[in-house]
Amino acid sequence: MIQNQPPRRDFLRYVGTLAALSAPTLHAAANERDRITFPPINDKSEKPEVTEPPADPLGERVGIAIVGLGRISVNEVLPAFGQSKHAKPVALVTGDREKGLKLARQYNIPDSAVLDYKEYDKLAQMADVKAVYIGLPNHMHPEYTIRAAKAGKHVLCEKPMANSVKECQQMIDACRKAKVQLMIAYRSQYEVLDRALVKMVQEKKLGALKEFISVNSQNMGDPQHWRLKRALAGGGALPDVGLYCINAARFLSGEEPVEVIGNVWSTPGDARFREVEESCQFILRFPSGFIASCSTSYAAHKSQMFRLNAAEAWAEMDPAYAYNGNKLKITRVVEGKEQASDIGLKEKNQFAAEMDHFAECIQQNRDVHTPGEEGLQDQRIIEAIYESARTNRPVKLKAPGRTRGPAPKEDGAA
Amino acid sequence: MIQNQPPRRDFLRYVGTLAALSAPTLHAAANERDRITFPPINDKSEKPEVTEPPADPLGERVGIAIVGLGRISVNEVLPAFGQSKHAKPVALVTGDREKGLKLARQYNIPDSAVLDYKEYDKLAQMADVKAVYIGLPNHMHPEYTIRAAKAGKHVLCEKPMANSVKECQQMIDACRKAKVQLMIAYRSQYEVLDRALVKMVQEKKLGALKEFISVNSQNMGDPQHWRLKRALAGGGALPDVGLYCINAARFLSGEEPVEVIGNVWSTPGDARFREVEESCQFILRFPSGFIASCSTSYAAHKSQMFRLNAAEAWAEMDPAYAYNGNKLKITRVVEGKEQASDIGLKEKNQFAAEMDHFAECIQQNRDVHTPGEEGLQDQRIIEAIYESARTNRPVKLKAPGRTRGPAPKEDGAA
Amino acid sequence: MIQNQPPRRDFLRYVGTLAALSAPTLHAAANERDRITFPPINDKSEKPEVTEPPADPLGERVGIAIVGLGRISVNEVLPAFGQSKHAKPVALVTGDREKGLKLARQYNIPDSAVLDYKEYDKLAQMADVKAVYIGLPNHMHPEYTIRAAKAGKHVLCEKPMANSVKECQQMIDACRKAKVQLMIAYRSQYEVLDRALVKMVQEKKLGALKEFISVNSQNMGDPQHWRLKRALAGGGALPDVGLYCINAARFLSGEEPVEVIGNVWSTPGDARFREVEESCQFILRFPSGFIASCSTSYAAHKSQMFRLNAAEAWAEMDPAYAYNGNKLKITRVVEGKEQASDIGLKEKNQFAAEMDHFAECIQQNRDVHTPGEEGLQDQRIIEAIYESARTNRPVKLKAPGRTRGPAPKEDGAA
Amino acid sequence: MIQNQPPRRDFLRYVGTLAALSAPTLHAAANERDRITFPPINDKSEKPEVTEPPADPLGERVGIAIVGLGRISVNEVLPAFGQSKHAKPVALVTGDREKGLKLARQYNIPDSAVLDYKEYDKLAQMADVKAVYIGLPNHMHPEYTIRAAKAGKHVLCEKPMANSVKECQQMIDACRKAKVQLMIAYRSQYEVLDRALVKMVQEKKLGALKEFISVNSQNMGDPQHWRLKRALAGGGALPDVGLYCINAARFLSGEEPVEVIGNVWSTPGDARFREVEESCQFILRFPSGFIASCSTSYAAHKSQMFRLNAAEAWAEMDPAYAYNGNKLKITRVVEGKEQASDIGLKEKNQFAAEMDHFAECIQQNRDVHTPGEEGLQDQRIIEAIYESARTNRPVKLKAPGRTRGPAPKEDGAA
Repeated sequence: MIQNQPPRRDFLRYVGTLAALSAPTLHAAANERDRITFPPINDKSEKPEVTEPPADPLGERVGIAIVGLGRISVNEVLPAFGQSKHAKPVALVTGDREKGLKLARQYNIPDSAVLDYKEYDKLAQMADVKAVYIGLPNHMHPEYTIRAAKAGKHVLCEKPMANSVKECQQMIDACRKAKVQLMIAYRSQYEVLDRALVKMVQEKKLGALKEFISVNSQNMGDPQHWRLKRALAGGGALPDVGLYCINAARFLSGEEPVEVIGNVWSTPGDARFREVEESCQFILRFPSGFIASCSTSYAAHKSQMFRLNAAEAWAEMDPAYAYNGNKLKITRVVEGKEQASDIGLKEKNQFAAEMDHFAECIQQNRDVHTPGEEGLQDQRIIEAIYESARTNRPVKLKAPGRTRGPAPKEDGAA
Repeated sequence: MIQNQPPRRDFLRYVGTLAALSAPTLHAAANERDRITFPPINDKSEKPEVTEPPADPLGERVGIAIVGLGRISVNEVLPAFGQSKHAKPVALVTGDREKGLKLARQYNIPDSAVLDYKEYDKLAQMADVKAVYIGLPNHMHPEYTIRAAKAGKHVLCEKPMANSVKECQQMIDACRKAKVQLMIAYRSQYEVLDRALVKMVQEKKLGALKEFISVNSQNMGDPQHWRLKRALAGGGALPDVGLYCINAARFLSGEEPVEVIGNVWSTPGDARFREVEESCQFILRFPSGFIASCSTSYAAHKSQMFRLNAAEAWAEMDPAYAYNGNKLKITRVVEGKEQASDIGLKEKNQFAAEMDHFAECIQQNRDVHTPGEEGLQDQRIIEAIYESARTNRPVKLKAPGRTRGPAPKEDGAA
Repeated sequence: MIQNQPPRRDFLRYVGTLAALSAPTLHAAANERDRITFPPINDKSEKPEVTEPPADPLGERVGIAIVGLGRISVNEVLPAFGQSKHAKPVALVTGDREKGLKLARQYNIPDSAVLDYKEYDKLAQMADVKAVYIGLPNHMHPEYTIRAAKAGKHVLCEKPMANSVKECQQMIDACRKAKVQLMIAYRSQYEVLDRALVKMVQEKKLGALKEFISVNSQNMGDPQHWRLKRALAGGGALPDVGLYCINAARFLSGEEPVEVIGNVWSTPGDARFREVEESCQFILRFPSGFIASCSTSYAAHKSQMFRLNAAEAWAEMDPAYAYNGNKLKITRVVEGKEQASDIGLKEKNQFAAEMDHFAECIQQNRDVHTPGEEGLQDQRIIEAIYESARTNRPVKLKAPGRTRGPAPKEDGAA
Repeated sequence: MIQNQPPRRDFLRYVGTLAALSAPTLHAAANERDRITFPPINDKSEKPEVTEPPADPLGERVGIAIVGLGRISVNEVLPAFGQSKHAKPVALVTGDREKGLKLARQYNIPDSAVLDYKEYDKLAQMADVKAVYIGLPNHMHPEYTIRAAKAGKHVLCEKPMANSVKECQQMIDACRKAKVQLMIAYRSQYEVLDRALVKMVQEKKLGALKEFISVNSQNMGDPQHWRLKRALAGGGALPDVGLYCINAARFLSGEEPVEVIGNVWSTPGDARFREVEESCQFILRFPSGFIASCSTSYAAHKSQMFRLNAAEAWAEMDPAYAYNGNKLKITRVVEGKEQASDIGLKEKNQFAAEMDHFAECIQQNRDVHTPGEEGLQDQRIIEAIYESARTNRPVKLKAPGRTRGPAPKEDGAA
């Protein structure tokens, strides 16, 4: 597991500076002592009771400015604060003031904390705002991340991190220099079933990993949407939805690809795909012989799954990558019979989970699980896939340094 | 459909008085105008986008006092406020002040709003508290409902409503007299899949209803738990979990049973079932020939399902009745092939949905969907089942008046 | 387990006479030595290979006359001989000679072995015919069984065994007197998933059995069909399809009901149900506290399932009772997670399996697993259910003697 | 659809010669007139009844010699004759005479029809033998096919057809010259769910095809098995199990790939993979923009699935490619809800279905659905995949001529 490698020196230095920065705001202790529990009511053969993890009082929560009020901010992130234990929305940044005011009223944010993009740098003066969530079109991620860093705010940035490796590195550098956290919003890495599967893999419950087969597709409509403009989106299906397959292959295995083969396709004459690819297929080779085969399309009915084949069992998530309703099945032979087992765990809102991890890391001065380095590595792979498709050649990749911080804490609630 | 019957006179009178009461506090208009929508991004063959329904500003929300801080209040109801659009917790009533203070801090409730049971009547003076949620052991429901009514507070009471028909009637009478709403917390009636199924039934999509087969069981542990004490719980598996089967047979069909057959069982020597029944089986006959066969146990591994067999199709929820993760499947013949279809709808927190319905009915002076009459009717059926089991005879039931108010509004979000 | 009780004296006497009868035709030895096996090709983590059990040469197979050429004989039983290892069809008895000749040609039966019902007693002279399969309308089972016994032929009779307890007893007596085997065609008791579940129950893998919930329904069409005539069918949904629920509750638990509660219903004016019941609900109480709740209808879309709730787990078959495609799921808590496991076993044709068991018992002079006593007991329960529905009272049942012979041998093929 | 293209001239000529050959043995007429049907018993909302298709009398069936008595012959093909309507086993060719004699007795084949490989050409003199089934190791397919053709016998050859394109062509040429049918045993193309899916695709029920994602893997054991020897097997996972993915992508879409990208992998030091590849990943590009991404491994737990993503829906088989128990699910939006529908069709034995198609084509002088051309095209693709993996370049493929004959007839039985 890459997690067990000795961290590279520059990473340690980064952590050190972060620690220095955060010390004054260090959260006294985990508030686990505030968890309310009850004497067991059920027989011991029943599932252990899920108790609600305790929440921070509003005054102790990490205040976050939501930057960009597109569908992900409005329909997912803002509602998810209701399930957050450690974060709260305290400001909105939008070009549509009317929309901003409507939402501000709904989320108990003062009108004065609704800013236009032009007022973005005012955030520096807003003491309540400890961090920003960047939910803007992809091409705006670098600028708004870097400006936030300069304003001394921690950054939770949507994926894909940026449209180029170069910009990813600039974002990392800016945050390091400003001594703020930079986390990329890889919500699947905070999803309970994904976490349970990572644990099974690490405990060798499935045997050696062999194959990862995954698809993440959806059928786009409006050809004018920014996601179909190269300058804004950086690409088509690959960086938007195919990215999930790349990231899952990596975080489930704990390995990094050494070679990439890519293929892209756009249907001639389809107005949606004049600038960006309609679909992309790619093969990722990992050092151990684990190999991922993935396909992503912007012109196929919503379809999201992966299967992880190991020597002694396979795991499947179907749906995988969804905002909610994901399911995990493990298939193996038990007592001579093929047994396909659905794993039942109480779902948690992924957006709340990722925000809470981010907020806790800020409160407790800990490294985030999915820092900028994690997004940078995916961008390297995306560029290699495009290069392979363009050159008709496999493209080799160097091993990155450590890309992930410690795993998010497991909630006792099974 | 019973919903289409002319309402009985006394029910109308009740509604009239409620209207009179609530007029001054009538919510200006649905806040649907504040919903944020986006131009469609996907092809029309994709699922219509779910947009977040707008939330009331905190100041306009219905303030609720949580009475009783047991597991349902702590692990389900209080967390669900984070997903509520119209309600907020403003006071806690508990015998365990330390627990109350811990939770008050987590939910932004002032320490001064943490009351002991002895201080319950102080609620009358707390203007923020518009309503109470009664999450107490069953035998305390009547007293705390009636006292809340006397204090001029609307009441959302957990099910089972009470331990006797007589007490249910007293609760209804008290709330009517005090001109406050009384709603019973039948969360399944606010669950999206159940609502979708009710709609299919009403639109005759399945053909004539014929059979309902259901089980709701769990394996209890601690023999000292109040749920196993007759004086406190009113019974064993039947009123606690079997109740779900009774209620589902009724609300799915829109009919009321005319005859009941019951059977109860407790394993001799099992310390858990000295006072209350271990398991109960019952048959409910409805006027149209629709018949329910149900089984409930306090000594079987958690098992929750129903199947609704109609002339041309059947519907199954498995799990059914769960706090989350319920699933709905419809089976019918399509183009000559048996087709079993899982119906995918975005899950909503049932506790938030029931509280929001309650809050909206208070805000808008509308009848609640599951008033005291709904709980009373279930209690009548429970008593008839016990009587049948005791007398070894079917027991006939008279038709109740209308037991349900208008259906909760459908969220546009499919 | 009732299987472990000392067999009653009359049963032993019966077995003794059978043994005496069959000795001369005793099959030399199991032909297991003829099974072809191969060195393993797969890793040991894969499912053990299923090897084909060896078949008897045609000359050694038990010749069976098919009596009645209705849909079950034509569409299920005759085709199933292709998968039988020990039986072969050697004669057809039908009132429709043209149909008989068509089928005879298809199944390699000489035209001379196609008999009219009037020629039924000629079977006595046909040495090839060792046994008969009775696939006639229910009311004809007794006569044709008794005449077969008098002709010295073993009998495999479809269920329900007969339309009255009295006739069931006459059939048993006639076969005993004639020293021939009488087996009732309870195909579910020879189905691989049902067998696997029985084994789990016997090995206490699920904990103590608590509840059995089952439905078996279908939507009948033609009001003139013999199954809707009381004199022919003996009843409606109950003896035809409800019977499966009764039998499954018994053979899965290994217990016999001590009390029965029944309810019947027919929709007034429905031409199909002038003579027989449309639907029936019943509760069966077993000595250990295990209780079955079942529903069966002739007016609901095909729906076949059971759930067996035990203290530590539950098992569900859905579909259950189907000719093919049954599925078994076991749900329990494993490592703190609710785990619902589909059990994968290679399906075997149930009709072939029951015929092969019958044929092997004839060849080897062994007691059949589902003798007349098994059918008689179900008929006792059916009559008690009707009596309970008629009298509005629970009806008590005496413990029968042993009703089942040894389990069918397990095929090594997992 | 390629099926609708005008057939190429040489194919027509081939058909012509076949017609000339087969004329004398032309089966008088379909025996559909012998099908036994019954008046409907169920309501019209129920699934239409499956009636058993009529079988040929033994004397009219196509006699087949089974060549090679490995596990597929012993455990699958020979047992499947019991479910065949048009074929019968009449001879066995094996190097293990004892095994042959055991099986001959079980399948009613005279000892004289058990031949050693050295006696293979005696088949020419055996009038009962109209055809051979080649169930030998891959490298023996060409020789035994060509010798069978020379003996005037039709050939049903297991897949992969051979270990090289050149040999495939020799087999086709030999059969054409000898005027005998050559069919490759692509059982999936005769499977009911696959057929139902092909029909949906052809009727445009899913919208334009976009992506095919498939895996077919298993974990091999014994390093000495012939499947792990290059000279015998021709390759590793790819030609044995990966072949199913290639073939399914082709027959489901009705298209032929124009470009192929391949990758192979063997774990260093794994004794099983000294000669053949452990795993293979490949991308197939089809002219319409439909693209297949597949993975196959000999070192992963048995895992078999495909998903076919189209613009408006997706179809999944999981398991796919299995001998039995395959399942088909279609997911699309219906009335605003994502609906995942399991399609229930009565399973048919795939080996019996393919043999019956073969036998009927012989009886009726019709072109087979999966002739040698179908196997040749898969072999071309296999070689292109290996070439791509070796050269690190995409490999282009020319369009083949027609590779498939008319679809197998649909059984009325839905």
